[in-house]
Amino acid sequence: MNVQTRIIRDAKELSTFAHEAQKAGKTIGLVPTMGYLHDGHLSLIRAARQKADVVIVSDFVNPTQFGPTEDYATYPRDEQADLEKCQSCGTDVLFIPTVETLYPNGQDSTWVEVSKMGNILCGATRPGHFRGVATVVTKLLWLSRADYAFFGEKDYQQLTILRRMAQDLGCPTEIIGMPLVREADGLAMSSRNVRLSEDERSQALSLNQGLRAAHALFQNGSRSVKDLTHAAQNIIQAQKNTAIQYISIADPDSLEIFTDAVPDRAIMLLAVKVGSVRLIDNMRLD
Amino acid sequence: MNVQTRIIRDAKELSTFAHEAQKAGKTIGLVPTMGYLHDGHLSLIRAARQKADVVIVSDFVNPTQFGPTEDYATYPRDEQADLEKCQSCGTDVLFIPTVETLYPNGQDSTWVEVSKMGNILCGATRPGHFRGVATVVTKLLWLSRADYAFFGEKDYQQLTILRRMAQDLGCPTEIIGMPLVREADGLAMSSRNVRLSEDERSQALSLNQGLRAAHALFQNGSRSVKDLTHAAQNIIQAQKNTAIQYISIADPDSLEIFTDAVPDRAIMLLAVKVGSVRLIDNMRLD
Repeated sequence: MNVQTRIIRDAKELSTFAHEAQKAGKTIGLVPTMGYLHDGHLSLIRAARQKADVVIVSDFVNPTQFGPTEDYATYPRDEQADLEKCQSCGTDVLFIPTVETLYPNGQDSTWVEVSKMGNILCGATRPGHFRGVATVVTKLLWLSRADYAFFGEKDYQQLTILRRMAQDLGCPTEIIGMPLVREADGLAMSSRNVRLSEDERSQALSLNQGLRAAHALFQNGSRSVKDLTHAAQNIIQAQKNTAIQYISIADPDSLEIFTDAVPDRAIMLLAVKVGSVRLIDNMRLD
Repeated sequence: MNVQTRIIRDAKELSTFAHEAQKAGKTIGLVPTMGYLHDGHLSLIRAARQKADVVIVSDFVNPTQFGPTEDYATYPRDEQADLEKCQSCGTDVLFIPTVETLYPNGQDSTWVEVSKMGNILCGATRPGHFRGVATVVTKLLWLSRADYAFFGEKDYQQLTILRRMAQDLGCPTEIIGMPLVREADGLAMSSRNVRLSEDERSQALSLNQGLRAAHALFQNGSRSVKDLTHAAQNIIQAQKNTAIQYISIADPDSLEIFTDAVPDRAIMLLAVKVGSVRLIDNMRLD
């Protein structure tokens, strides 16, 4: 489905576009991304295309969700390639805001502070990360007047926090999670994968392999947090250049972290640095 | 304009009502209040009635904007009288939520943290107050899908912070400020006035009198923060049982507080405890 995608760079222009669409009785689907689109993103855009009358994709590397020592400057960007992919998936608007249009008052801004859920897992090693995510997503939801917003389950904690934010704040947008998409060899798709060297790319397969080992143990009846975690840990640590930030097993809705026994419905989540590239992955245990 | 006002107590029910109205092409005006309605509130409802197709008034004494030693428990409430006043002004929906429906996850909630503007003036003596205000207003805006939201200029800092919040977060609701309404003797209307004793009620007139004295000096050419402030201060302090929390002169848009010279466009704001009742008032200097 090839369409002419309109590029919008100004927040007010997006707001006006969305208002007109809403007044015309159209439903709006939003796919917030940081750009450098891969097949995971495209699966979100296709889902939005199926569900909504108007599809808005945002491409914004949001500075406020990066820590001072993180990879904001080196995060990959390719606007032209993104535009072509958006067109091929039937995107009506590609919103590429400047930092100034989304943060008109700079750092002296209004912030959306998430619940305690934001301090665990990725939040423990990335303080302020989910505040940045929740704030920018609030802006995008309000500007786009989205009826539906689509997020990948690769960023599982993000998805869960945004669902919680929408519930807490009475946000009428339906937050829709879509399955994680993997490369043929099992690596979870991520814009950051392009920054892996050939060696690191091969070592990074251990994340999925570790999750699969834990999953196999779980299916064989193990309900021990320690055993399942060790199974994943051993495989990842066998690769040099990997540094585990966390491997945790949590409740899929509340993100409550299990420390002893695993119930019949859970999710294993992990974050690992491979060389200088921080990767995340997860797998349902059920 | 007497209408049958529908009472809604559940957040989801309000959200559904607003969605239906929006889909029917109607514009929505919201008047957020803490109830115990007076003529100031009614002027907001009448403005909403003029501007929007559907008028929603909310009656909610929001616990998260009160400090632990403040008057949450004793804040006056009268649901039946509010309903009758709403009906007389053409209110379509009176939303009277429970704490549980607006804070489904209690204190472990998502919060809207306002900019530095929230730490000065009333924010200096009421830490967390504007966070509570911004959070509950965000919920009300999202639930009601308001095109317009109306706030009185009596709570001038609140109005300014909410305008700023809407700008920062891309909120499409137009925030509309309406003039402060006074009693015949000059006292700014407030739900808290009912808690003043007869003596205190009379002493409380000094707030308006102090502002008018400063305003007269300003009109006579004085541009000295010190002189204008003293003019108000002397009148208020002449009453026993008054305790000034602040008297400040600020920029009407940014709330930047002037410390030396007053420009030709400014606002004087003050907060004073009269007995145990905290009152605020303000007056433009221009």
